[in-house]
Amino acid sequence: MFWTRSVRISVSTQSVGTSLEDRPQQEGFSDTKKGEEIMADRTSSAEWKGSLKEGAGTMKLASGAYEGPFTYASRFESGQGTNPEELLGAAHAGCFSMFLAAVLTNAGYVPTRIHTTATVHLRAGPTISLIELKTEAEVPNITEAAFLEHAQTAKKNCPVSKALAATETTLSAKLVN
Amino acid sequence: MFWTRSVRISVSTQSVGTSLEDRPQQEGFSDTKKGEEIMADRTSSAEWKGSLKEGAGTMKLASGAYEGPFTYASRFESGQGTNPEELLGAAHAGCFSMFLAAVLTNAGYVPTRIHTTATVHLRAGPTISLIELKTEAEVPNITEAAFLEHAQTAKKNCPVSKALAATETTLSAKLVN
Repeated sequence: MFWTRSVRISVSTQSVGTSLEDRPQQEGFSDTKKGEEIMADRTSSAEWKGSLKEGAGTMKLASGAYEGPFTYASRFESGQGTNPEELLGAAHAGCFSMFLAAVLTNAGYVPTRIHTTATVHLRAGPTISLIELKTEAEVPNITEAAFLEHAQTAKKNCPVSKALAATETTLSAKLVN
Repeated sequence: MFWTRSVRISVSTQSVGTSLEDRPQQEGFSDTKKGEEIMADRTSSAEWKGSLKEGAGTMKLASGAYEGPFTYASRFESGQGTNPEELLGAAHAGCFSMFLAAVLTNAGYVPTRIHTTATVHLRAGPTISLIELKTEAEVPNITEAAFLEHAQTAKKNCPVSKALAATETTLSAKLVN
């Protein structure tokens, strides 16, 4: 209800489209309409110089909030620096937490705190074989059953979860009132 | 060949598994074996406090390289801070660039520079409707046709692309020798 209404933005670093294709409506966000304006486009970047093992790269967020180096060692070993999997994990944990806050708020329960970890498993291939979400939340006055149901809704419907639908994801949710 | 060999890590912030299920082999990384050890697990986190619109959150990378605030405004409007979509875009741009460097190196062409942008389109739903990859590379001695083929291989097979297989992704690739 509150999520998709009146969000019409224009940000200098982003390209802007005009309309939306028809999409299935989702629980908790049921007023999505055909023809609605875009929400946001974000353009991040990366650069790599050299070979896989001797080379090095940087990844940079669209907002400029962060730019950091990565290497073969920071991705596949324990070298200093960042890597794509930990950025993906932070994106998933953040998206899930915010979406769960939205779903809970929509149901009449404003969360005090939602803390989520996302463990991204990188296996030979290389392939991301699994993402484990673990969330712990303080939500006044809610029953555990209702909380767990809303947590599953957030796991299923948050934008990053949907984008990662091809990847196995598990959720462990705990109400800690 | 070079990618999946002898990578056996143990990092204190990561949980460690023991073996791999059987996976299809991929172009350029054909020595993936059943039973091979894990490559890396990365545990990032996020916390959200309060309702969707009045609340605020933080996202934190597993390595500790970055922790930053996000809000409704930084995600859906032009407010200061980060958001899950730009983290996802940076992850995709970084993964694609590194994978393309690996594929090129494996084919005998060490890239001088690969620069990639990833534009993540967030539409009502909210849904990530499209990811646009645009890459520009300096690669000595390669033909344009061979470069474009390797770029498509990287788009198809980099771990983040595979994780995002449910999301439409486009690639525009340019050799700038």
